[in-house]
Amino acid sequence: MAGELVAERKSASFDIRELTYLLGGGKERVERREYLQDIVAKDPVFRKEDHLDRVGYFKRSLEKSKRFYQLKTEMNLNMDDIRFVKSAIDQELPTDLHDGMFVYTILGQGTDEQKEYWLPKAACMEIIGCYAQTELGHGSNVRGLETTATYDADTEEFVFQSPSLTSAKWWPGGLGKTATHAMVFARLLLKGKDHGVHPFIVQIRDMETHRPLPGVQVGDIGHKFGYNGNDNGYLLLRNVRCPRHNMMMKFSRVTADGKYEKPPHDKLSYGTMITIRAFIVFDASANLQRAVTIAVRYGAVRRQFSQEAGSKTEMKVLDYRMQQYRLFPLLATAYAFHFTGEFMLKLYRDLQKDLSTGNFDILAEVHATSSGLKAITTWTTADGIETCRKCCGGHGYLNSSGLPELFTRYVPACTYEGDNVVLLQQTARFLLKALADARASKPLSPSVQYLSNIASIKGERCTVKRVEDWFDSEVQLAAFRHRSARLAAVSGRRVQSEIMSGKSPMEAFNVSMIELVRMSKAHVGYVIANSFIDAICDIKRADLRTVMKRLCDLYALYTISNELADFLEDEYMTGSQTKMLRQAIEQCLIAIRPDAVPLVDAFALSDFVLNSTLGRHDGDVYNALWEHARAEPLNKNEVVDGYVEHIRPMLKQQVVVASARL
Amino acid sequence: MAGELVAERKSASFDIRELTYLLGGGKERVERREYLQDIVAKDPVFRKEDHLDRVGYFKRSLEKSKRFYQLKTEMNLNMDDIRFVKSAIDQELPTDLHDGMFVYTILGQGTDEQKEYWLPKAACMEIIGCYAQTELGHGSNVRGLETTATYDADTEEFVFQSPSLTSAKWWPGGLGKTATHAMVFARLLLKGKDHGVHPFIVQIRDMETHRPLPGVQVGDIGHKFGYNGNDNGYLLLRNVRCPRHNMMMKFSRVTADGKYEKPPHDKLSYGTMITIRAFIVFDASANLQRAVTIAVRYGAVRRQFSQEAGSKTEMKVLDYRMQQYRLFPLLATAYAFHFTGEFMLKLYRDLQKDLSTGNFDILAEVHATSSGLKAITTWTTADGIETCRKCCGGHGYLNSSGLPELFTRYVPACTYEGDNVVLLQQTARFLLKALADARASKPLSPSVQYLSNIASIKGERCTVKRVEDWFDSEVQLAAFRHRSARLAAVSGRRVQSEIMSGKSPMEAFNVSMIELVRMSKAHVGYVIANSFIDAICDIKRADLRTVMKRLCDLYALYTISNELADFLEDEYMTGSQTKMLRQAIEQCLIAIRPDAVPLVDAFALSDFVLNSTLGRHDGDVYNALWEHARAEPLNKNEVVDGYVEHIRPMLKQQVVVASARL
Ligand SMILES: Cc1cc2nc3c(=O)[nH]c(=O)nc-3n(C[C@H](O)[C@H](O)[C@H](O)COP(=O)(O)OP(=O)(O)OC[C@H]3O[C@@H](n4cnc5c(N)ncnc54)[C@H](O)[C@@H]3O)c2cc1C
Ligand SMILES: Cc1cc2nc3c(=O)[nH]c(=O)nc-3n(C[C@H](O)[C@H](O)[C@H](O)COP(=O)(O)OP(=O)(O)OC[C@H]3O[C@@H](n4cnc5c(N)ncnc54)[C@H](O)[C@@H]3O)c2cc1C
Ligand SMILES: [Ca+2]
Repeated sequence: MAGELVAERKSASFDIRELTYLLGGGKERVERREYLQDIVAKDPVFRKEDHLDRVGYFKRSLEKSKRFYQLKTEMNLNMDDIRFVKSAIDQELPTDLHDGMFVYTILGQGTDEQKEYWLPKAACMEIIGCYAQTELGHGSNVRGLETTATYDADTEEFVFQSPSLTSAKWWPGGLGKTATHAMVFARLLLKGKDHGVHPFIVQIRDMETHRPLPGVQVGDIGHKFGYNGNDNGYLLLRNVRCPRHNMMMKFSRVTADGKYEKPPHDKLSYGTMITIRAFIVFDASANLQRAVTIAVRYGAVRRQFSQEAGSKTEMKVLDYRMQQYRLFPLLATAYAFHFTGEFMLKLYRDLQKDLSTGNFDILAEVHATSSGLKAITTWTTADGIETCRKCCGGHGYLNSSGLPELFTRYVPACTYEGDNVVLLQQTARFLLKALADARASKPLSPSVQYLSNIASIKGERCTVKRVEDWFDSEVQLAAFRHRSARLAAVSGRRVQSEIMSGKSPMEAFNVSMIELVRMSKAHVGYVIANSFIDAICDIKRADLRTVMKRLCDLYALYTISNELADFLEDEYMTGSQTKMLRQAIEQCLIAIRPDAVPLVDAFALSDFVLNSTLGRHDGDVYNALWEHARAEPLNKNEVVDGYVEHIRPMLKQQVVVASARL
Repeated sequence: MAGELVAERKSASFDIRELTYLLGGGKERVERREYLQDIVAKDPVFRKEDHLDRVGYFKRSLEKSKRFYQLKTEMNLNMDDIRFVKSAIDQELPTDLHDGMFVYTILGQGTDEQKEYWLPKAACMEIIGCYAQTELGHGSNVRGLETTATYDADTEEFVFQSPSLTSAKWWPGGLGKTATHAMVFARLLLKGKDHGVHPFIVQIRDMETHRPLPGVQVGDIGHKFGYNGNDNGYLLLRNVRCPRHNMMMKFSRVTADGKYEKPPHDKLSYGTMITIRAFIVFDASANLQRAVTIAVRYGAVRRQFSQEAGSKTEMKVLDYRMQQYRLFPLLATAYAFHFTGEFMLKLYRDLQKDLSTGNFDILAEVHATSSGLKAITTWTTADGIETCRKCCGGHGYLNSSGLPELFTRYVPACTYEGDNVVLLQQTARFLLKALADARASKPLSPSVQYLSNIASIKGERCTVKRVEDWFDSEVQLAAFRHRSARLAAVSGRRVQSEIMSGKSPMEAFNVSMIELVRMSKAHVGYVIANSFIDAICDIKRADLRTVMKRLCDLYALYTISNELADFLEDEYMTGSQTKMLRQAIEQCLIAIRPDAVPLVDAFALSDFVLNSTLGRHDGDVYNALWEHARAEPLNKNEVVDGYVEHIRPMLKQQVVVASARL
């Protein structure tokens, strides 16, 4: 068994370790990551358990939170280090939103004095915060939040009310049982005037007893698909107060006598959200990497059906063309998302630079692109994890495969930080505006340059003449650009015609949504392919460049074939080019096969993180499955609890049967 | 809140109850179902609990098994009744495979004497059986099973051995802790000759102590994604014996002196599998019905975003075109699968009749069609449940939505009873043979009549000229037929050319798999659309026929648009017909919207079965969510278990921090 993967690794066309360095930001950074992840793996506090009930699992999660904080302090971990350690801990923690959104909001929306006051407290856990935006009745529509913060000039305080059942905060991570403070998003009321939703830091628990403060009703919202190590909570506020300076005042402020001062630019508070979204794209890659590692390694160990009559030797399931067709595009996608994540971080850094110099030009594009990328990468990853699980046959259904939990913990990424359908509408709004700019010959942002020749798309045709032509990155990008421009034109016409027919712009937008989403998906597809292709040009080592180009081809061509109608509908591509496209894809699958295990090895995911009987580095799958079954609590007793009460009465014909009811 | 659904129900274009009768097989049968389901719902043994650990959950599952048996006996339930009661119990039970595959195998493969001996014992639970086919190393490839049964003529017994780690039985439901007997599939060895895999009834536990018999090593395989109320088990046999007459001998037999007598027809043992598959298609519909009921009702209650500046009234999310586009095709699919299930049961009954008269003509087609239908309906349903969950936004991630458990319990249907990719290959083999028959002008089975004009497909064109033309069932079927025939031709050519290039038939089949699967999916798409269209002709009431026709249109047109490239690639459809197709689909969405809630109501799923805070009949979603949160064990104490040990030390700056490690 173990021999299977040794042989697979010998067939690598490239230096696996060098690819790990390329992905991981260099030798030093990778070694630092491995050093930290090893500390986590060896720490008994971070052991993984399979059989805890909710209360026990939550208590263990708190223990991990504390241990994480201890490590962070002892080792003086920086931001990079913290990401490494958290990814090694590989579990949601009750303090994740304290470390994340709570602190980010202070960083992004607090004044310098507020940052000086709150950040040190947060850093040393003197307070534990959470991000309390969503309510029972409102998630996507933040402007519809009902919680109110009324200013009381006499005491210089805000007074919070939850005016209805649906106004309860509902979902904030860490709120239920852990947080002492909440970043509460509430409608600011000044002298009866509603100034819309703003963030305030509200203390919700007593610092001595940890009991909810008077007027605070708080708890956990219940068992979830996953994430049960996090106490997503509810919160009702009745006459709860906070000092005036607890309102985050970098952009809007309330003076001591209750005057409101407006923000200079109404999109400024997007900064925090965009950082988060850049990391969401990286996380999509990281999660898909895990799923693909498990399925590819297992596929190289699992043998099923002999391919010659009478032969005892069976075929590795990874050698079935269909298994390759299901898995290798996901392998390519995991790489594509990684490079797209790098592209986004760069975009975000550029944005930060521009914003600090008062330049807001790039903001709309970054917001639109990050929204669309978040939607597409999370959907693709959620579906991809489940495909990988199905590719493991029956054993993929065991928790010990590592895939069920990976899925349940990942899928909410499609919903939190913005429901994906709602986000794609942000992308669509930007694209419609860019289309109008293009028609008016105004300058276009980098990602939508393809709209500049919107007038000439009708005549454009795919230039492929032979199968090999499909491996030309320019040919691939031309197809993506053409499709995006065409669908933008189609969408623009659709919305226009709805408005002409008398609908309001909002109504027109809603009824055109199917087209608009198609357009937005096409745009994002182009951005990802473009990021991947660009990244390859920067790779110095020839062996890595070659294998990455192959994956990039597969990503681009598979995406085109998967959304093929978009390219056929206007006869941009012909039937014979389609046939060549399919041949090109199969050539990619064949070329990637010898590198498949090396390519997942390059992700350098440790057995501790994979936590998978099927995805182990040594391929010793069957012994691992046995080991795991041994630990099942039901196997503690030879005769199961319930035998005497339920099984034996049946076998012994002692089930009391009343006279027939009917 | 509750008012929302009352209004929705008023807009029904049809009599909801009459549709329930149509789906449920008439008034009497529906009332019987509701009567039985009500008994289950009121029985405290069948209450649903959310917070049990594995051992506790399993014990409760045994209790439900016993109670089910009690009801079955008391009320003398027939097959139909049993399905109703089991669907109301709505949980996997440790005895499910006893009632199912164990008994079916005796029915299908036992002789009359064997049936007389075993079935009464099974019926009164004097023994509890399971279906032990899959091994750790072999699931899909049943011929590769390693367990051996060697005949010992001296004692007239078979002697069972598990010769390797991978030969352990692994997965059989009920095997781990419950079953006293197993239907063991093992290689029959007679005087050193291997006669392939056959089923034998082997006793594995002592009838007095329930302990494993000598030589039997048995237990539970561990925690799973779902199905944890079932003790899927492992089994190793060392010199375990069973009497000769425990081999199921309807088709193959071993004489007392150890002679093997062959089956007359090698496909006969497919009978059991085909019954199971017919029910799998019904179950796909039943599961999709549940998910769609929850998402549609919640969508009619949930409001998010006002569509006019300044307005307080927000839009129902079900009124967003995109939400309709995600949900209504699934609603249509739930109906399509129901009628396809009825079609399959009829096919199966015809098959039974034919087989009993020694006519095997239809067997190949029924096997191929049922294989393909099983694959497509289970995949579509698994994906559909998750889409419905995502359509419920954040609250869909709560277990109390009912959707997480529905998903985890449903997804293994894509794997058990045959991995879907492996099954589609069965369909493909049949289609390739039918194609050869068509080319040789041999008679074709009913479902592949479309191959009869294989020679003329090149010139066929879609005849749509106006949007309304797409609502012509003949136009829809023509498109499905054309696609299926064309893809069969493409696949046939591909396999031929691979063979011409020197590959073995098996190799040629493997490398052509992507095309073959596309062809098989197309065939199944045609069968489903055809079943739905046929069923509508038989509906007598005009109101029901009209609304079903609308759903059928949506099903057919959405399927075409979803797999559009198949219809564009050879220019069967034009760009302008595609545009009309999209318009036709949007017209369907608009027409279905007022009937959406009535159409899910017609499934008549009780609140007990839905077990969903979001899908309740009365629409009182937000109160239900509150109720449920109250029951969360974490909320028992105001200050959570773990505060003293983990939270307080952080807040109080008492976490012991060693001097920096680095
Ligand atoms: C695990 C998890 C953790 C979370 N953590 C936090 C946290 O720490 N803090 C916090 O404040 N919140 C948190 N949330 C809440 C989360 O941000 C919201 O659930 C999310 O924003 C979705 O909003 P919603 O639930 O209102 O969805 P809804 O908007 O109600 O969506 C329901 C359906 O309606 C559709 N829809 C809605 N509007 C439109 C439209 N205009 N057009 C078309 N379709 C539409 C959606 O696509 C979806 O299908 C968390 C949620 C989860 C699941
Ligand atoms: C919940 C559950 C309950 C079960 N209950 C029972 C039970 O009661 N009794 C019992 O005997 N068994 C049971 N099983 C086992 C089940 O029947 C097998 O798991 C199933 O048949 C799949 O087989 P496998 O695991 O060997 O998959 P594999 O064949 O190993 O599949 C792994 C991957 O290889 C691919 N693959 C395999 N062969 C080919 C090929 N020729 N061409 C292309 N791709 C291929 C598959 O598509 C899949 O992606 C159960 C399983 C589950 C999950
Ligand atoms: Ca043409």
